[in-house]
Amino acid sequence: MNYSVVIVGSGTSGQTVAIKLAQAGISVALIDDRPLGGTCALRGCTAKKYFVVNRELMDGARDLQAQGLEGLPLPQWEQTLALKNRFTDTVPENTLAYLKSLGIHVFQGTAVLNSPDSLQVIPSQFRRASESAKTTAITELTFDSLVLACGSDPRVPQIPGIELTLDSEDFLSLAQAPQSMIILGAGYIAFEFSHIAASYGARVTILDRNASPLPLFDPGLVQQLLASAQSRGIRYVPESSAASIEKTPGGLRVTDTAGNAWEAEVVLNATGRVPRTAELNCPAGNVELKGSGIRVDAWGRSASNPKVFAVGDSVAGLPMLAPVADGMAEVVAEVLLNRGDNSCVTPFSSLVIPSTVFSNPPLASVGLSETAAGEKYGEDLIVNASDTSQWISSQRIGQRHSGYKVLIQRSTKKILGAHLLSHNSSEVINIFALAMAADLPAPQLEKLPWAYPTAVSDIKYMLRTV
Amino acid sequence: MNYSVVIVGSGTSGQTVAIKLAQAGISVALIDDRPLGGTCALRGCTAKKYFVVNRELMDGARDLQAQGLEGLPLPQWEQTLALKNRFTDTVPENTLAYLKSLGIHVFQGTAVLNSPDSLQVIPSQFRRASESAKTTAITELTFDSLVLACGSDPRVPQIPGIELTLDSEDFLSLAQAPQSMIILGAGYIAFEFSHIAASYGARVTILDRNASPLPLFDPGLVQQLLASAQSRGIRYVPESSAASIEKTPGGLRVTDTAGNAWEAEVVLNATGRVPRTAELNCPAGNVELKGSGIRVDAWGRSASNPKVFAVGDSVAGLPMLAPVADGMAEVVAEVLLNRGDNSCVTPFSSLVIPSTVFSNPPLASVGLSETAAGEKYGEDLIVNASDTSQWISSQRIGQRHSGYKVLIQRSTKKILGAHLLSHNSSEVINIFALAMAADLPAPQLEKLPWAYPTAVSDIKYMLRTV
Repeated sequence: MNYSVVIVGSGTSGQTVAIKLAQAGISVALIDDRPLGGTCALRGCTAKKYFVVNRELMDGARDLQAQGLEGLPLPQWEQTLALKNRFTDTVPENTLAYLKSLGIHVFQGTAVLNSPDSLQVIPSQFRRASESAKTTAITELTFDSLVLACGSDPRVPQIPGIELTLDSEDFLSLAQAPQSMIILGAGYIAFEFSHIAASYGARVTILDRNASPLPLFDPGLVQQLLASAQSRGIRYVPESSAASIEKTPGGLRVTDTAGNAWEAEVVLNATGRVPRTAELNCPAGNVELKGSGIRVDAWGRSASNPKVFAVGDSVAGLPMLAPVADGMAEVVAEVLLNRGDNSCVTPFSSLVIPSTVFSNPPLASVGLSETAAGEKYGEDLIVNASDTSQWISSQRIGQRHSGYKVLIQRSTKKILGAHLLSHNSSEVINIFALAMAADLPAPQLEKLPWAYPTAVSDIKYMLRTV
Repeated sequence: MNYSVVIVGSGTSGQTVAIKLAQAGISVALIDDRPLGGTCALRGCTAKKYFVVNRELMDGARDLQAQGLEGLPLPQWEQTLALKNRFTDTVPENTLAYLKSLGIHVFQGTAVLNSPDSLQVIPSQFRRASESAKTTAITELTFDSLVLACGSDPRVPQIPGIELTLDSEDFLSLAQAPQSMIILGAGYIAFEFSHIAASYGARVTILDRNASPLPLFDPGLVQQLLASAQSRGIRYVPESSAASIEKTPGGLRVTDTAGNAWEAEVVLNATGRVPRTAELNCPAGNVELKGSGIRVDAWGRSASNPKVFAVGDSVAGLPMLAPVADGMAEVVAEVLLNRGDNSCVTPFSSLVIPSTVFSNPPLASVGLSETAAGEKYGEDLIVNASDTSQWISSQRIGQRHSGYKVLIQRSTKKILGAHLLSHNSSEVINIFALAMAADLPAPQLEKLPWAYPTAVSDIKYMLRTV
């Protein structure tokens, strides 16, 4: 069978491309070897948010003790899990029905490249079948264009006993909240899940192989977040690299390379995620990889095979975030709608894409870091920064750790980056992203009348450029 | 004594003008007859927010019952009051110290106009003194320009027994939460304070002389908010005009013009606010009023006396909102810095100023109403609207009443208005305000990558223009 466009992966970016092309009347096939819907909906951002909203309420009530509230609501893991499952259970069939209604042909199975313009789909139940049985079940597809939206999997570090650990998907499927948890890694998953587990009563220890966590965020704000996490009973251990994991009568023991040992009921592997390209057989399709990620240009086109595009977590070197995946997918869809001609399509840039750690307070960021901005702009850089724990907006909600850093180009007054640790920063960061995308300079933003008093209305105090 | 600029009123708009002029080296006097700081800080938006943040937590925990939380934090009115007072008690002296540090001369007393370019300040303690004693205490000031930022007072309807009611300031100073409360009026103060009182356990009844509440907001969303309020036990009575108020053994009884009677521990008068111009003696200054509000042009200049400007709640016909007051103050300050020449100053428009009712969910609005947009744009208007209570973002927080309406001009794709009833709408509305102020069309906004999942990231579903 031949399709104009074949898409591998049914997550948010694969769907975005598929829907736009199908709506334009292009023949589209979509392949996935797992339940339809992708990581964000089923195992990531959306699924996680069910736990986050409950955690936020519990943390918020805790912060307001002796400021108007006494006593805390009791967390009920099972209820949240049930609600999350009620949502995720419906995603695959709803997704299938919607894609079919647009005329998209959906194949469930593993996509394996045969050549630069063909692949085969091996149905999941035949993956381990004999070659002859497999051959009869395989579907061969040829394509004018291929979009790889294969997503990512949790990284599995080579540590004895790593198979005893949970990954983020396992954590979100635990039947009960753990009483104690060790987290390997100190990125945003570690910080979000440590806050969730702690609010449900778990004793949490984060083991970080590095000297400080969250390397993609502002170091000063990260230190404030760390203080906040520690005040909630989350233990953080820097420079601790797990060497082995073994069972104990009560759970698991992690021993690090320095010989220290920690024990907990469960261990969460949050050491990162890697592009999910292992089964694609990229060499047969002349699809060049960097590590396990697909190498593409700023329009998502493969560096080695012009018929192939890639979007989302499977791309090499991109932040693994849903808005990044969607943004890249929009660009690729536009190129494909222009029959592969990218001359009129704005290339993808992740610079103005905001990201958030849903911790307490949430940490949010967009644009350049202070270091990167300093290297690029030197004396032409204004750095506005402050601890804001004494601001009214922090004090009235009992928020004891908060701050911001806003980077502005002195000569043009353009906003180069914004970094926020505060209540609702996940909403406020979008104002900065919009201002950067629309090229609105700081003085224009400073003058705007915001609804008052909101988290956004604090922005005006962050924008001075004199 | 002569000053370049005399300002009457120390609220947010009076201070904004005073500070900008003083920083430019202009001689400024500022007069207030009440503790410095104004309504927003001492009696309004900021003071109220201490109760709102606790109420939000209680309502949020209530909404999540059986979705991950069991049991509610117990509300403690006295604690919130103490924290609010700790803030408001410091405002007057902090304000005075700051204004003095900028070289502003501050007079405490009542400003009374003598002529189109002079006034007298009567110190508060001499207000009821004999004429001779008063004369010696009075200070006479002449000015090149006068800025009236007198603010507003609660409206006092002519109802027998109205003196038995509380106004919003009284409510925010109650030693304990009332067990039951009747509210006269159904504007944003009624909705915010009813939600606060209800969450602290009060039985609340809103008596509305009109057939439906919140006339400045979208009627469909208002009906949804009303359903939400009623689900929280707030009783709403349309077309009920109070005729008399009298004491009972347990509190007060309100009888309406139809003869119905309601009883409660306290009655809140929330029938509106009126500009506070009664003591100014405007005729002597040739300052024309409309009702009790000062008539000005779009640069804040008095319609009758070119030396006089007005800002904030004392202006006729403006929404009484802190961002409106500040926006107008910025315009007036700019005109005065240009020595009264307004030819290069953008006139003030309240069109892109967002407003919020801090109810549950909050109701937020910016730009034109559907009715106004329909009259102006006819067939060129796109109305995107939906009940969003089935959206994941509503379901996962147990939000049972939510919706939006976004108005877009078909030909230009410009956003004409946005109306939101949803969690964090008070933050999200700022995105629409920014887009309108910066003239960003809907398709550009639709494409932007927002931090995910946030309340702002729902925007993309509201912007379709096909």
